Amino acid sequence: MLYVPRLLHLAQGCSEGLTPLTAFDNALREAGIDNLNLVKVSSIVPKDARFGPRPSLPVGTVVPTVYTHVVSNVPGEIVSAVIAAGTGEHGGVLMEYHHRGPADDAERVATSMVEEGFALRGWTIDEIRFATAEHKVDRLGCATAAVLLLEGEPVGGHLRNEGEVTP
Amino acid sequence: MLYVPRLLHLAQGCSEGLTPLTAFDNALREAGIDNLNLVKVSSIVPKDARFGPRPSLPVGTVVPTVYTHVVSNVPGEIVSAVIAAGTGEHGGVLMEYHHRGPADDAERVATSMVEEGFALRGWTIDEIRFATAEHKVDRLGCATAAVLLLEGEPVGGHLRNEGEVTP
Amino acid sequence: MLYVPRLLHLAQGCSEGLTPLTAFDNALREAGIDNLNLVKVSSIVPKDARFGPRPSLPVGTVVPTVYTHVVSNVPGEIVSAVIAAGTGEHGGVLMEYHHRGPADDAERVATSMVEEGFALRGWTIDEIRFATAEHKVDRLGCATAAVLLLEGEPVGGHLRNEGEVTP
Repeated sequence: MLYVPRLLHLAQGCSEGLTPLTAFDNALREAGIDNLNLVKVSSIVPKDARFGPRPSLPVGTVVPTVYTHVVSNVPGEIVSAVIAAGTGEHGGVLMEYHHRGPADDAERVATSMVEEGFALRGWTIDEIRFATAEHKVDRLGCATAAVLLLEGEPVGGHLRNEGEVTP
Repeated sequence: MLYVPRLLHLAQGCSEGLTPLTAFDNALREAGIDNLNLVKVSSIVPKDARFGPRPSLPVGTVVPTVYTHVVSNVPGEIVSAVIAAGTGEHGGVLMEYHHRGPADDAERVATSMVEEGFALRGWTIDEIRFATAEHKVDRLGCATAAVLLLEGEPVGGHLRNEGEVTP
Repeated sequence: MLYVPRLLHLAQGCSEGLTPLTAFDNALREAGIDNLNLVKVSSIVPKDARFGPRPSLPVGTVVPTVYTHVVSNVPGEIVSAVIAAGTGEHGGVLMEYHHRGPADDAERVATSMVEEGFALRGWTIDEIRFATAEHKVDRLGCATAAVLLLEGEPVGGHLRNEGEVTP
């Protein structure tokens, strides 16, 4: 049942809520991804994956997603959540950062993390995209950033009864 | 490899253990779901999903599950874990709450969160079900509540080689 | 879309990094699993699963994985992360423990947890394997241990349109 995603969708949203969880739910709604069952994954861009709009998915679809969020109940505080998606010839990495501070600082940190991840792998960065959310807290606010991993292709062994070769 | 679950199973359990993780394992056993590989997901009820008993599943089956738990090592303390499953015409939301306090309070909070989630979506609540666990700690105790997302139907793009249309 | 894994792969790694997340990314690289999208799961060994080397998987493959890690920025501190995989006739359990201390202590704790998990189930332990990582922190270091759950076989209801019986 392993698979490789082929379509990545960046999303970001901010909102207030009555509780931390509903503030997060509301922020997911602003991001357009509130009616999905998100499965948290770590953070690799498959080779040749493309970025694009979210396809229409039924309510409750289970979707592997890299996401991060930050909640604060300090009125006036700025919170931000960022995922930086670095891509290159061999694939890429998704690095998340959130903090109680402005989004441009969070993007700088996430960019450094992408650079470190590429350097580690000996890969070259072609492009860095961002999902970035920044929110000024009213009463209890949330900023969230996410990358949905969509349109997977099956990999290997789980299909071995159907004629495929186990990797 | 995206899919929409069609059968939801509510479960709850409480137990003592020698460590926080084994107390949780024991509580999952009381809930009847200890021999599964739970994948944590966020929290949407698909349209037309039904609630029912857990089917017999092989040891180690990987199952997307909304779950929450609370552990305490304060003898005599009451801990409780709740998931409220609100459903309506268009689908529903699963909201979790746990705390060091009684279950009826936790159910009240989770109910408010369901109401907020429905209001946000402009949906009407038909029914709210609960998975509720309350435990009085002896030495090191755990309460857990869970909703298993079962019987998924495939969605969209991963089947595009088999004739389906990518959404 | 439920399934039962049939191949388990133990991995462990340690590394330094510039941030906690990149230290973890680097440690995953040392473990040979940095280019995968890990989905965190709880912790059961299916009956008749085998342990073996990691198959070659495309960059970005989504893989259910039991993993744990510990990060420290205290120079000279020893950190360790362990997963103990206990197996027997009916299946087994994976117990994780990490701490700021040596690996042999962490293995002892994880072993006790496996013993408690087996006792709870009334099972007998045939063997305990370990994924163990121990790291002496230079500036900001991470130790990680993981068990990849591979080669899944489909289970039950999601295939009911193809002639299988829903369990």
